[in-house]
Amino acid sequence: MGQKVVVGLMSGTSLDGIDAALVNISEGDNQKFQVKLIQFSTLPFSESMRERILALCDPNSARLEDISLSNMLLGELFAETAKRVVTEAGLKMKDVDLISSHGQTIFHQPESKRIEGYNVTSTLQIGDIAVIAERTGVMTVGDFRTRDMAAGGQGAPLVPYADDLLFRADPNGRILANIGGIANITVLPPAEINEQVLAFDTGPGNMLIDAFTTWATQGKQTYDKNGELAAKGKVDEKWLKELLDHDYYRLPAPKSTGRELFGLDYANILWNAKKELEPEDKIATITELTARTIAEECKRFVDSYNIKEIFISGGGWYNHTLRKGLLDNLPPSIKLGSTDELGIPADAKEAIVFALLGYQCINKRPNNLPSATGAHSPVIMGKIALA
Amino acid sequence: MGQKVVVGLMSGTSLDGIDAALVNISEGDNQKFQVKLIQFSTLPFSESMRERILALCDPNSARLEDISLSNMLLGELFAETAKRVVTEAGLKMKDVDLISSHGQTIFHQPESKRIEGYNVTSTLQIGDIAVIAERTGVMTVGDFRTRDMAAGGQGAPLVPYADDLLFRADPNGRILANIGGIANITVLPPAEINEQVLAFDTGPGNMLIDAFTTWATQGKQTYDKNGELAAKGKVDEKWLKELLDHDYYRLPAPKSTGRELFGLDYANILWNAKKELEPEDKIATITELTARTIAEECKRFVDSYNIKEIFISGGGWYNHTLRKGLLDNLPPSIKLGSTDELGIPADAKEAIVFALLGYQCINKRPNNLPSATGAHSPVIMGKIALA
Repeated sequence: MGQKVVVGLMSGTSLDGIDAALVNISEGDNQKFQVKLIQFSTLPFSESMRERILALCDPNSARLEDISLSNMLLGELFAETAKRVVTEAGLKMKDVDLISSHGQTIFHQPESKRIEGYNVTSTLQIGDIAVIAERTGVMTVGDFRTRDMAAGGQGAPLVPYADDLLFRADPNGRILANIGGIANITVLPPAEINEQVLAFDTGPGNMLIDAFTTWATQGKQTYDKNGELAAKGKVDEKWLKELLDHDYYRLPAPKSTGRELFGLDYANILWNAKKELEPEDKIATITELTARTIAEECKRFVDSYNIKEIFISGGGWYNHTLRKGLLDNLPPSIKLGSTDELGIPADAKEAIVFALLGYQCINKRPNNLPSATGAHSPVIMGKIALA
Repeated sequence: MGQKVVVGLMSGTSLDGIDAALVNISEGDNQKFQVKLIQFSTLPFSESMRERILALCDPNSARLEDISLSNMLLGELFAETAKRVVTEAGLKMKDVDLISSHGQTIFHQPESKRIEGYNVTSTLQIGDIAVIAERTGVMTVGDFRTRDMAAGGQGAPLVPYADDLLFRADPNGRILANIGGIANITVLPPAEINEQVLAFDTGPGNMLIDAFTTWATQGKQTYDKNGELAAKGKVDEKWLKELLDHDYYRLPAPKSTGRELFGLDYANILWNAKKELEPEDKIATITELTARTIAEECKRFVDSYNIKEIFISGGGWYNHTLRKGLLDNLPPSIKLGSTDELGIPADAKEAIVFALLGYQCINKRPNNLPSATGAHSPVIMGKIALA
């Protein structure tokens, strides 16, 4: 089969900026994919842009005009990021076959509501693909999640479909954990085992840690670099126990969450709940909460899926305190690594995944994983804007 | 060339419901199109649905969650309407090659704003095409307007592109006027003349008349049937003169407008400004305003484009007082007719047009008319959701 040059674009809940992965996708028989990263670039959001998006994600401050304008504005920024990664790779836009963009999620509600006689779930990703296609001259795919929801799924997580295609191993099972704003894991059974791939959000990723760090440093730091602040603090075990009592952790998988449950509102309540604690202790406790909730979910599958390795991607990999917390809460037989070791740099993983999802879309192939999203069937996610 | 069975879906600013036109599009050499209407159906909005959408169109009441949910919910209703028109035609969904949906506009701002270093215009159509494709099993195109805006256009009007393709005549020029919530005209030069097709919104269509009628009848009527209420009233010439002094009517074409300028807020101010007038007089005056503003714009082209005929589509055709107002304000040489006479029933016209725009999109052909929208170049509008 052929090979295609694809740009994958991603902007996650952590609102750092837009990631672009320029990849070469080649395909052998039976959908055996080789995805090679050519270049990875990021367009950081300005502080005003970050605030603009934060305001859009908050139902109390999101306004119709801002949603509509920001949909187009983010299209401009996504296009800019696509151009940047292509230029940095020394290529031209005409060398690119496809752009595939996740967009920016500003609302995600997988629990259905009964309205006008319909059970309605919804999700809203902005960053218009028509703007991207127009600015770049390249066919653009995006807005993936609504189709999975229309098929009865939660519209998330989408990464596991690609994990299954790219990383299934033999003879051991593997877990891939992405620690972005929200943390999610993909549980891959050994290649020859006919067990379902499972994937779901475990709960907070860097979202609470980032918020606490921002408040602890009066805005001087927006994330806990190397986990140094958490390392200086002491975990408050009693508080941790209370925090672990959150309903979400008891929900059975597959499940997905976002800023609605573990966003700024929740962070704010927690931050102000323990005035007697030092800021570092709060960060240490919330970091341990994050590590513990990820590790606990992983542990359920160690035996049944013969898990020997856990590969981390996302910004959480660089938080050494979080990493240590994971190791402390996992059986000693488990090896912890970065997805870099699988040929996919941790930073770039989600952007690469969206490149692959878009590639499958234009090849008219289903690209959701029903066992992960809960959809009743495989469907072709994504909308196509022609060049 | 081939022929395709296409469903066009439209829901306009008047919020009556969703129109569906099932058409057969056949194509000869040189894009000579024949569009034959097989069946036309409407799914009326329930009162609660109408109120829901009205609330979404108002920046003061539109909420993020409702926008996101209604995007999916309207997808369900659009899908329902597509199924209805196909069933009523005695066909099956598998007989349909394509669905093309305009969606429901909830925001439209063609004037650019400077944000984050970009000049941003925006428009927001909801009614997710992924839901339509999933429910019907048919490839669906929609969300046309953003691409034209990305190309520097106003994202409107879109109908003139189809008017040009379908209705250009010889040796006389023609005007096509669509009187929906907003009124717009397409000015077609005679076929052999190399003059630009012009098209723009003239101002209010039925929007103000509908609002006044609803208030005058305490909600018993939502539109002035046959223009009977207006016929009972008397035009207040002094007030009419004031109303004609609105900035919009002085703007040069191409120009487009919507609920922002001539919506409920404006209607409400006008309704309450003249307490001394009888409700019928208010309706008569606002009907004359609508007729006058449409006629005045048509008159500019009678000589230069050799206009002999004006064809009306949209609900305004059935308002006899509005029709009489148009005739009174036009030169006696002008013949007024319905687009029915062109083989396109007035009610169905916009839905048919979107069928054609979607057909062009999947055939990878530009489907905007830069002289109407102001775009710097022809572009392929529409996003494609695969079956």
